[in-house]
Amino acid sequence: MEQRIKGTTGLLALIGSPVGHSGSPDMYNFCFRYHNLDYCYMAFDIKEDQVPAALDAMRLFNMRGCNVTMPCKTAAAQNMDELSDAARIIGAVNTIVNENGKLVGHMTDGIGFVGNLRDHGVDVKGKKMVVLGAGGAATAIQVQCALDGAASISIFNPNDPFLDRAKNTAAKLKKEVPDCDVQVFCIEDQDKLKEEIAKADILVNGTMAGMKPHEDVSLITDKSVFRPDLVVCDVVYNPEETKLLREAREAGCAKTIGGKGMLLWQGVAAYKLYTGLDMPVEEYKKFQAENAK
Amino acid sequence: MEQRIKGTTGLLALIGSPVGHSGSPDMYNFCFRYHNLDYCYMAFDIKEDQVPAALDAMRLFNMRGCNVTMPCKTAAAQNMDELSDAARIIGAVNTIVNENGKLVGHMTDGIGFVGNLRDHGVDVKGKKMVVLGAGGAATAIQVQCALDGAASISIFNPNDPFLDRAKNTAAKLKKEVPDCDVQVFCIEDQDKLKEEIAKADILVNGTMAGMKPHEDVSLITDKSVFRPDLVVCDVVYNPEETKLLREAREAGCAKTIGGKGMLLWQGVAAYKLYTGLDMPVEEYKKFQAENAK
Repeated sequence: MEQRIKGTTGLLALIGSPVGHSGSPDMYNFCFRYHNLDYCYMAFDIKEDQVPAALDAMRLFNMRGCNVTMPCKTAAAQNMDELSDAARIIGAVNTIVNENGKLVGHMTDGIGFVGNLRDHGVDVKGKKMVVLGAGGAATAIQVQCALDGAASISIFNPNDPFLDRAKNTAAKLKKEVPDCDVQVFCIEDQDKLKEEIAKADILVNGTMAGMKPHEDVSLITDKSVFRPDLVVCDVVYNPEETKLLREAREAGCAKTIGGKGMLLWQGVAAYKLYTGLDMPVEEYKKFQAENAK
Repeated sequence: MEQRIKGTTGLLALIGSPVGHSGSPDMYNFCFRYHNLDYCYMAFDIKEDQVPAALDAMRLFNMRGCNVTMPCKTAAAQNMDELSDAARIIGAVNTIVNENGKLVGHMTDGIGFVGNLRDHGVDVKGKKMVVLGAGGAATAIQVQCALDGAASISIFNPNDPFLDRAKNTAAKLKKEVPDCDVQVFCIEDQDKLKEEIAKADILVNGTMAGMKPHEDVSLITDKSVFRPDLVVCDVVYNPEETKLLREAREAGCAKTIGGKGMLLWQGVAAYKLYTGLDMPVEEYKKFQAENAK
């Protein structure tokens, strides 16, 4: 019977609510063991109004880091000692690193998106992009892709309260990353959507459209927009191939990329921030497969 | 490779300073695994002035419990929602149980002493005792033995600032446990010490005298006080047999009891408070022996 935790073992955790179902403790603890790091990863149910207290506890217990999930990402960003560029522009944090008492907030969702594309042989640098949505995932993607050198980003969103968030992101990026041409449109303007996709290299669904149990939904209803050299991406990972991706593939798009890799790569980015090491992704996948038997 | 920690796993911890050397994480985590309890035990370096913040964190993270070590025991007692009788009288806490947000403080050092004696076939009930010292361990023993029905306790301490603490303990016990006759004497009065030991069933060294590197020290210099039916106990556990115990044994005392078992039994008492279960002591000893190979 192996025992890993000692008096010297440092704590990391996921904070948010709910967290009981999270696979993060399993993943991080595997990786800490694999790299022989004296860390232990747990999950704590923290509501939004408890975030400042959780950050105090993080300092008090000298925790190396925290992953932050809903509904705590915005409150966390508001209480950091320092923010990464992406976290500052987005106004949300999903990864906190405790640098000797100084809490530095990062947002690795967009990094995960870019990493997933790179893993599929696609570099966002210099690319023209169309991103659907203005929620947390879409915003993280828009900001990170702009920071990573995308030539242009056309944001499409329904004419709902999130449209203002899209406009706000565009305004911030215009100031922060002036080389990236960010524009916002109403998705109801289907002619404009078709026109922008025609000019784009990469089309991204950054909304929950198509996620179970609504697998029969896709925001792209005119399949004539698909062409072989259009990269089509989805943040939805359940199902692994959404209606959008299936129709794009069937229409001849050479590269269709699901959201599962984004989830993985945002974790890889967080692990790198905590430890400076590359997450043993393949080894963990193998471990999972063996334990599922 | 076994992985035990999930999103639902509850945290317990040792708080105090220093704690990096502590064997408690190893012991408790073994027991939680043995009993298949979804708990994880860590250690956090907490200074005295950080105790209120640590208790806030304990509530926030819904921790089931904390063991408290130096220098935090008194501050912990001052910040509990409720105290056991022993903890209240002693004014110190070494075990905190979180009962749905209500923090209940206990002091299991004295319980550990009584448990260790019971393990050696000695019941303190109705016994006349002489206890040397007025520090934390001695006070815990005095209070718990009084609560557990000792007939009398004669406390001997040098004429130093701790003598007032002994007098304070005696005054509290006079009020709280009037059936137990508690008296305080200066250890410089060797005639009185000899007289009280002659009437006693149990002699306890509750001080650090005799602990490494001062193995050549014993507060009992007149070996004529030892008689076969005098039970002689020491809170010191390093060395396992102190000079006091060795000389008592050599002088014919039938029962000499070292401090190691007290340490073990205070942990057993804490484990029972956290889990309602009996610590798998023999199984853990076996595990330790196997791992030491």
